[in-house]
Amino acid sequence: MFTLLHHCSRNLLTLRTVQAVNKSYYSTQMGKRVAVVLAGCGVFDGSEIHEASAILVHLSRGGASVNIFAPNIDQMHVVDHLKGEPSQEKRNVLVESARLARGNIQNLSKLSVSDHDAVIFPGGFGAAKNLCTWAVQGKDCSVNDEVKATLQAFHSAGKPIGLCCISPVLAAKVFPGCEVTVGVEKDDKYPDTADTAAAINQLGCKHVCKSVSQSHVDEKNKLVTTCAFMCKAPIHEVFDGIGSMVQDVLKLA
Amino acid sequence: MFTLLHHCSRNLLTLRTVQAVNKSYYSTQMGKRVAVVLAGCGVFDGSEIHEASAILVHLSRGGASVNIFAPNIDQMHVVDHLKGEPSQEKRNVLVESARLARGNIQNLSKLSVSDHDAVIFPGGFGAAKNLCTWAVQGKDCSVNDEVKATLQAFHSAGKPIGLCCISPVLAAKVFPGCEVTVGVEKDDKYPDTADTAAAINQLGCKHVCKSVSQSHVDEKNKLVTTCAFMCKAPIHEVFDGIGSMVQDVLKLA
Repeated sequence: MFTLLHHCSRNLLTLRTVQAVNKSYYSTQMGKRVAVVLAGCGVFDGSEIHEASAILVHLSRGGASVNIFAPNIDQMHVVDHLKGEPSQEKRNVLVESARLARGNIQNLSKLSVSDHDAVIFPGGFGAAKNLCTWAVQGKDCSVNDEVKATLQAFHSAGKPIGLCCISPVLAAKVFPGCEVTVGVEKDDKYPDTADTAAAINQLGCKHVCKSVSQSHVDEKNKLVTTCAFMCKAPIHEVFDGIGSMVQDVLKLA
Repeated sequence: MFTLLHHCSRNLLTLRTVQAVNKSYYSTQMGKRVAVVLAGCGVFDGSEIHEASAILVHLSRGGASVNIFAPNIDQMHVVDHLKGEPSQEKRNVLVESARLARGNIQNLSKLSVSDHDAVIFPGGFGAAKNLCTWAVQGKDCSVNDEVKATLQAFHSAGKPIGLCCISPVLAAKVFPGCEVTVGVEKDDKYPDTADTAAAINQLGCKHVCKSVSQSHVDEKNKLVTTCAFMCKAPIHEVFDGIGSMVQDVLKLA
């Protein structure tokens, strides 16, 4: 056994190095303060629930402290997720987002950039209906004033911005020339990527093809994006891809 | 290098064994058919969102095929999660649960036990308000007829039942003498466990203390429980504890 250990010393050293790197990774993340901006609660009219949850799990594992925000505005509409059709109800983005935040949420107007090291926007149609009007106007959309101000403030401060699924279009609209991914073009697993990518390119940005497990980092603009549920992938692959995005955000923060 | 590899052969064998076990674990899980029963969408009046999402992520990673169900009934009430107070709205459990299921959900009345190898109930107050009346009547609660029939049918068929957070009280009410956990008694991190455990014991069941990372398996009744958000733990620890519960369910299935 001693001989085995002795001769395996290089392997053991490698293991120790990995452990040291891991420890270093987590300890350098300690105390990173991350804002998460929601857009409601439910894929068809709010934030995509599993994307938002995955972001919170990965931030927690990375040792970040998290504050959750949403704009205090009416949803564009309410979709009955059983029928897949709009209903006649009215719901408020901040009130519904509070479901995902377990009540611990603040009005987006209170978000102080100086109190945070990074900001992350999950996807879901809420990002394209409530945070901007992409769902109905595409590249000619307008972005909610508070959302636009938040994005510009983090960008100006050189602090990273993470986005997934459809929310990278917010960056494409606000930061001309930036690079983002919403998945892989011309692949049946990414049915909506080609059209969205074309619109992003028409805005003067660069769409970068990345698979569901990958994130793309625009180093210049400190933007980290991943396609999440733009891909028809098993939910654990979406979870892992969001993990890649969150880790890259924490590294840049 | 050759020498190193040669002398490390026992280590390599161990590694290969681990890989083989992992491969075996995942391949034996392939095709397990699991029903997940929801109770709305939001911790205070429905299913706890992050528990439900974690269950789906871990089932997906375990290679299970999943069908999601909820009863087609009104919620006991609707809680404004921003204010933490009931509102005057009415919402339907099946319709709201569809948000968590991304629209892919069925009426609980359609759940066929013969089409599934296991069933899992996430927690959240919805389990104690909509699936039974524990939130207002404690151990004297009644259990929704379809929920009770579902639990009894899986139990009679010898198929495992997974529950987390407050939902183990469903098992305690329906299966006298069973063993469940809702956390650790007399620990500040588990503020509601002592009272809930006492009520479980008064029903003639046995409460077993387990930390947030652990699940408890009642082998006789094929019940797997974990405390999840009954513990004030970081969300990634809740996620991991639910992973333990899901893996134990899949092993028993």
